Amino acid sequence: MTSGVDYTRPEILSMAGYTPGLQPAAGSSIIKLNTNESPYPPSPAVAQTLTRLLADPSLLRRYPDPLSSDLRRQAARLAECDFEQVIAGNGSDELLRILLDAFVGEGEEVGFFTPSYSLYPVLIRIRGGRPRPLALRREGGIYLPDAAALRGIKLFYLTSPNAPFGCSFSNTFICELCTALDGILVVDEAYADFAEENALPLLAELDNLVILRTLSKSYGLASLRVGLGFAAAPLIEQLDKVRDSYNLDRLAQSAACAALVDQDYLRRTVAMVIQERQHLSFALEKLGFKVEPSQANFVFVEPPAGCEAAKLYLGLEKAGIMVRYFSDPALRHGLRISIGTRAEMDRLLSVVKEYLDSPQNLSWLDKPNMF
Amino acid sequence: MTSGVDYTRPEILSMAGYTPGLQPAAGSSIIKLNTNESPYPPSPAVAQTLTRLLADPSLLRRYPDPLSSDLRRQAARLAECDFEQVIAGNGSDELLRILLDAFVGEGEEVGFFTPSYSLYPVLIRIRGGRPRPLALRREGGIYLPDAAALRGIKLFYLTSPNAPFGCSFSNTFICELCTALDGILVVDEAYADFAEENALPLLAELDNLVILRTLSKSYGLASLRVGLGFAAAPLIEQLDKVRDSYNLDRLAQSAACAALVDQDYLRRTVAMVIQERQHLSFALEKLGFKVEPSQANFVFVEPPAGCEAAKLYLGLEKAGIMVRYFSDPALRHGLRISIGTRAEMDRLLSVVKEYLDSPQNLSWLDKPNMF
Repeated sequence: MTSGVDYTRPEILSMAGYTPGLQPAAGSSIIKLNTNESPYPPSPAVAQTLTRLLADPSLLRRYPDPLSSDLRRQAARLAECDFEQVIAGNGSDELLRILLDAFVGEGEEVGFFTPSYSLYPVLIRIRGGRPRPLALRREGGIYLPDAAALRGIKLFYLTSPNAPFGCSFSNTFICELCTALDGILVVDEAYADFAEENALPLLAELDNLVILRTLSKSYGLASLRVGLGFAAAPLIEQLDKVRDSYNLDRLAQSAACAALVDQDYLRRTVAMVIQERQHLSFALEKLGFKVEPSQANFVFVEPPAGCEAAKLYLGLEKAGIMVRYFSDPALRHGLRISIGTRAEMDRLLSVVKEYLDSPQNLSWLDKPNMF
Repeated sequence: MTSGVDYTRPEILSMAGYTPGLQPAAGSSIIKLNTNESPYPPSPAVAQTLTRLLADPSLLRRYPDPLSSDLRRQAARLAECDFEQVIAGNGSDELLRILLDAFVGEGEEVGFFTPSYSLYPVLIRIRGGRPRPLALRREGGIYLPDAAALRGIKLFYLTSPNAPFGCSFSNTFICELCTALDGILVVDEAYADFAEENALPLLAELDNLVILRTLSKSYGLASLRVGLGFAAAPLIEQLDKVRDSYNLDRLAQSAACAALVDQDYLRRTVAMVIQERQHLSFALEKLGFKVEPSQANFVFVEPPAGCEAAKLYLGLEKAGIMVRYFSDPALRHGLRISIGTRAEMDRLLSVVKEYLDSPQNLSWLDKPNMF
């Protein structure tokens, strides 16, 4: 007899699904450096705006603006583009999916560098597309894949700055890739506010370029799931057709708009993150770590010889510090550490030092290996 | 030369997209009876919960629980099922889409009655599925489509109570349809809290049944986009794979959970809506309208002979009352009116009376016909 689950598409049935970074319960004392959230709360304007909105609870019963007009207008102002060049999403994850719905037909290929955001191949398979991973060659500079490697790619996800390495791609590179590509280039700029350069100035010249931003990182609004997409107006028009009409709730729209307005707060908190990134990078290098130069709000670090990344990960966890370890062969030699406050960085450094000095004495390491 | 927009999938390029009901700006004095929102704010517990949460703005910077655990636990308690039988979505619109991603491959057919929710064919086309509309035969009772009509349907969306007519399908009917179907039956119960019966008791016996609920209607939370899905645990497991990991933001999860807990408030507000539905139905029948018996928070009404629905719609709009008019040939003889407060219903009735008494005297009708 057929059971309901037998109606599942074979591609989905055989799929493992995406595993997000662990999210401990709110209020726990864990130092959370595993999902690149901001160590700072969002602009005070966010809570003020939401509190004002809640004072009229009858607003809650009404559908939100299906066009996210205020938010898009504010985003367009900052990006110096037209309102019609902006789309708002329920996190940039939703925009990544919408892009597939709009541009990638069954069996068509979607390119991305490895390593980069591990969600890409999951989303592509769900959509019925074919993932085309291209190894990121970095030694001695970042190399453009040759024309043959790009052939047949309908859409390409470029994470810039890259995660988990933190390196960014120059606008010259992006321009060349976009031109070489016979398809859509999506530059996923989740971490661009921490970088020296971003691709927005290219928007006017490249009509197959889509730039994604998120308010989950630099704006400290991960709880609210707001992403933004920028592209030529005719592209946004197509994306809009495949977007859920009410994809972004009223509180998220208002909060995001308030956060975007307060650019002064953004600049200050981003500057603090960059300062802590330098502090941590320098301190870890002094301890013998290899630290990837980062343009993001995290660093990818390789522990000194004799210290296994997986074991250090467990040691940190036992000490109440969560960082990200990837079992992927290209990444398992290192750890990705989100930048936190100075106090968090100092606590991390002191645990690392203690671990390096005498790992055998640390009782927390009796835990069985979880990988 | 190829322009970026030329990379759009042909199905999307030729599509018009879905047009949601109009949403006037917050604070306008319009009587809004066009999108079936609740006339009452959500439970006071919602604003209290959100205010408490905002008191710690650092919570905003953290990703929400990717599993929506508290919300799903509360939903499972109410539905008397297991936690593993519940999925939470960014509105039930997201769940409608996720169902296609999980079960409907390229070119496979998805059934639904016409008329019902006009979003279905749009979502199906986006997914690359084939819409299979079946005419809803209602005169003298609702008839089950014969086996031949159901053949080859991979998934069927059944809106119960139906929109825009308001009629509901008995559990006997749902059980027969589910058994006859060689695929998944999705019962979209957006309006079930206003109905005498719902399909939740069938959940334990039918492993190809999915039931959707929303907090946008009876719970007065349309602004926050929260939908719930119920099914056998193995089905939910598949749906979960194609769900965005962080599909529901922290405020929406907390607000929805608080709303679900306050069942007493739900019962009271739903009872008021049902009372006003009876009041309005009776009063419009007295004015010569044909009123479809409704199990939902709206009524579909056909104006008396000589009064065109499209013109009455415009008359009401001019008087500051928004209702829903569909240009679909099967629906253009009537209007769908959401149930409001007694004051809103009385204002509506008084404008309708004035219109019926002397439409030619009403200066507001000089507006050109918008259809």
